[in-house]
Amino acid sequence: MKQTLAEIISIGDEILYGQTLDTNSHWISGALDQIGIKVIRKSTVPDIEAEILTSFQEAEKRADVILITGGLGPTKDDLTKPLLAKYFGVDLVMNQDALNDIEQLFTKANRKMTDLNRMQAELPANCDKITNQLGTAPGMWFKERGKIFVSMPGVPYEMKRMMTDFIIPRLQKELVNYHVVHQMIMTIGIPESSLAEKIRDWEEALPKHLKLAYLPTKNTVKLRITASGPDRDVLKKDIHEQVDKLKPLIEKYVFGFDEGNIEYFIGKMLKEANKTVACAESCTGGFLSHLITSIPGSSAYFKGAVIAYSNEVKHNMLNVDTETLEKHGAVSEEVVIQMAKNVREKLNADVGLSISGVAGPDGGTEEKPVGLIWFGYSDKEKTIAKKYNFSKDRILNIEFGARKALDLLRINLSEK
Amino acid sequence: MKQTLAEIISIGDEILYGQTLDTNSHWISGALDQIGIKVIRKSTVPDIEAEILTSFQEAEKRADVILITGGLGPTKDDLTKPLLAKYFGVDLVMNQDALNDIEQLFTKANRKMTDLNRMQAELPANCDKITNQLGTAPGMWFKERGKIFVSMPGVPYEMKRMMTDFIIPRLQKELVNYHVVHQMIMTIGIPESSLAEKIRDWEEALPKHLKLAYLPTKNTVKLRITASGPDRDVLKKDIHEQVDKLKPLIEKYVFGFDEGNIEYFIGKMLKEANKTVACAESCTGGFLSHLITSIPGSSAYFKGAVIAYSNEVKHNMLNVDTETLEKHGAVSEEVVIQMAKNVREKLNADVGLSISGVAGPDGGTEEKPVGLIWFGYSDKEKTIAKKYNFSKDRILNIEFGARKALDLLRINLSEK
Repeated sequence: MKQTLAEIISIGDEILYGQTLDTNSHWISGALDQIGIKVIRKSTVPDIEAEILTSFQEAEKRADVILITGGLGPTKDDLTKPLLAKYFGVDLVMNQDALNDIEQLFTKANRKMTDLNRMQAELPANCDKITNQLGTAPGMWFKERGKIFVSMPGVPYEMKRMMTDFIIPRLQKELVNYHVVHQMIMTIGIPESSLAEKIRDWEEALPKHLKLAYLPTKNTVKLRITASGPDRDVLKKDIHEQVDKLKPLIEKYVFGFDEGNIEYFIGKMLKEANKTVACAESCTGGFLSHLITSIPGSSAYFKGAVIAYSNEVKHNMLNVDTETLEKHGAVSEEVVIQMAKNVREKLNADVGLSISGVAGPDGGTEEKPVGLIWFGYSDKEKTIAKKYNFSKDRILNIEFGARKALDLLRINLSEK
Repeated sequence: MKQTLAEIISIGDEILYGQTLDTNSHWISGALDQIGIKVIRKSTVPDIEAEILTSFQEAEKRADVILITGGLGPTKDDLTKPLLAKYFGVDLVMNQDALNDIEQLFTKANRKMTDLNRMQAELPANCDKITNQLGTAPGMWFKERGKIFVSMPGVPYEMKRMMTDFIIPRLQKELVNYHVVHQMIMTIGIPESSLAEKIRDWEEALPKHLKLAYLPTKNTVKLRITASGPDRDVLKKDIHEQVDKLKPLIEKYVFGFDEGNIEYFIGKMLKEANKTVACAESCTGGFLSHLITSIPGSSAYFKGAVIAYSNEVKHNMLNVDTETLEKHGAVSEEVVIQMAKNVREKLNADVGLSISGVAGPDGGTEEKPVGLIWFGYSDKEKTIAKKYNFSKDRILNIEFGARKALDLLRINLSEK
């Protein structure tokens, strides 16, 4: 059994100039992956006849299914439809059904149809029309020389509706069943290379039809196991067995098995433990609180925070001793301990988290360089501090620092 | 004079599976556009040897510059480096300079280097190393058969830093012959379509070699004038003339002429006015403070903030009357007035900003729907409140809301 291979072609200068971010091909990839079709190439080509035709030829050689978005508008810089007719050597003919669809759209919107809109109902003679529920450009389905070509508008919601209503079901009907199953393992606090060393033996012993990928972002590394084959239940079982073997090797770094970031996971943990948190941030300037509150429903466990950017605010709002600030400096174990404990008490939370460091680019000294960050954690039983060295980059220090604080929360909560 | 053509190749199964959205090639497109290099194709290929090699061959035929991202990690699913060596028919050799870079990174972070990391310093014999300031995988610069190949990590911040520090300057040095000059006009508080109406006559009268782009992001719209031709000084003069004509048409919406966001601009204003600010945030949960403190040197004008997510914290930390909270609710004119005034006084700042709204997705009522946000501004002379309705989307409400508060600050500061 051979897996069906697909290729996605996005047409449009605006993507190549960096003005429009192509989210269409990302969405289509995910949708095809769900039904076991493997995307082997994505291309973006300009609104130039020769480039578009070449991309059709190249794709037809490699893939079974070619999905094309863009270039279907009513203006003359839209080339996809005439080029598909040219590519297959057929004429454009008026499609009465497509014309009815367009007329209906205009009637509903109480707008007058132009000649340009009428011409949108002319389609290559060899295609099946795909109804566009949300716009004037019909989609097209071609089956030629054993390959399927599909052309869709570039407007994301029009494309998605066509995919969901028509294209996905028809692909499923026409193509042989072949399944792909993924499993995520979310880790934090360990770099990709160290993780790879820890699990090397396990990885090398993986059965052939299971593949492992390392996907690092900020200070989390997502492991993805992908299994492919004819029977979905067998694949699930195979993955499950491997995850059971993997778990004990990296237990303390794993924070979840679902696609989801550390702030989402922390939210789940706090809700389950029925605990609330409050933060005292200095160098991260609100980013820790922002991560926590980016999760819907976070008001159930987040009390609030004090962003104590100046020493004055650390003293006035968080009761940090002036003496301690003078003796040890704002970036110190003593200060984050007071910040974590006091913010917990003042905001009446179960847990207090604190951060104070040198974000940079200025303000570093030999003893306390840019990238040095102290963290505090406090609950009713204990208050602890940890320090880490991050980078020279201000934004990275802010982002890594805030996530490190969440990891500290995770570790201390899971110890209970 | 021929314009330089570029092609971007992104390598990685995770993009083709729809798990990672490829923002790298979008960012690179924009960066190349800035220096007058035209992207004629973007491709994403899987972690499969034959597919990657084919993409190199195809790109070399079409483009002068080929920029490759991804596949440089330390693990064995990362194929780019050995394949580049194979493509150019050279060996991988230990690059002492790259090894020093990596060792330094590990020393600084106080971490132990693994053999896998050491192997990352082995590079194809024919390339120039590109320093990776933020990670262990060096970049590579090849010049072969009159074409430039550049290989970069897929981690966005590592790639961006390499582009900014090394690749863009070197491309400019090697490829100068055709100039592109851009001028930004940053606006806030007016939608793209209204802006377009206000400046339509001016836009239609623009000389042929000047082009205008509308680049909306969140609640700012960036206008970009691009001039291209052989003489940089002439282009600058032409743009200057047009900006002088444009200014009076949209004066009150323009906040700057440099690439720079509203938070950067606000920082400049506050420093020039020698004023400090403090914030009281509810629904934006720290994002306003994060925007302000994302600017280096913001400690000169940002005192700090109280993130008062619960009513309890609004009362305890910001002295908002319990009675007012009960009578008018947390999302009300009365509450944001007290929050702005009290945070200014308690944190001893010149200006207080406050935000309280319904971020969603839950918590909306008929009277106070999701997307309703109240803003407060307070200085020694006055305290005012404004309300706006944003969207149904939590993240957009947080981001638009925080930037709206900065716009309120801008308007009130510029009235002085």
